[in-house]
Amino acid sequence: MAANAGRLKQVLNQTIDLDRTFHALADKSRRTMVERLTLGPASVSELAAPLSMSLAAVLQHVQVLESCGLVKTEKVGRTRTCRIERAALTAAEEWMTERRRSWEVRLDRLGDTLREESTMKERP
Amino acid sequence: MAANAGRLKQVLNQTIDLDRTFHALADKSRRTMVERLTLGPASVSELAAPLSMSLAAVLQHVQVLESCGLVKTEKVGRTRTCRIERAALTAAEEWMTERRRSWEVRLDRLGDTLREESTMKERP
Repeated sequence: MAANAGRLKQVLNQTIDLDRTFHALADKSRRTMVERLTLGPASVSELAAPLSMSLAAVLQHVQVLESCGLVKTEKVGRTRTCRIERAALTAAEEWMTERRRSWEVRLDRLGDTLREESTMKERP
Repeated sequence: MAANAGRLKQVLNQTIDLDRTFHALADKSRRTMVERLTLGPASVSELAAPLSMSLAAVLQHVQVLESCGLVKTEKVGRTRTCRIERAALTAAEEWMTERRRSWEVRLDRLGDTLREESTMKERP
């Protein structure tokens, strides 16, 4: 019972995380930040450099990325350094990969069925 | 110039598509529909079956999936059949995979640097 409750909690958490992760990625500026951060940690000013928006706006985007677990930040002195957290990105990628796999399995089965039907027709 | 304009339009379209695709996927019910549709086409009623919501609400979700190009629908008689469109899902998966690759390249380089530094220290 406790194991089931634990599993349910895990499933619910995963759902919430994917909702928030995909929501965070549904914005070009935030995707640009994630693209930059996969190359290595960066300060908020560095993230802001290629974007035409205020530092305050950039910080708001960073907070969205942080709240869904895609990014972790650490403030040392006056500099806030951002790092990508791979787990959230991996969870979203895994969801995508699973969909592609079930799609491919379906196409394989469809191919098998068509081949079988064509063999049946060719029989005298 | 025309080629550049074409490329710019393509980049802008891609951006808009990824924004809309990730937004569409940021909802558990819509992801459940996409999961079902990767197994094969389904009517709106079939999509509604595992979800505790009205047909009207399901139709609204289908429209979101259709507007971003993840799903195509066709109405024959009184039945609307939904099919997954692989291109939009592939574009989103490719964005994810690209991020993972640049992350892995970065980790490889970091590993090389650490190994080089450790070799330098070992030298007498």
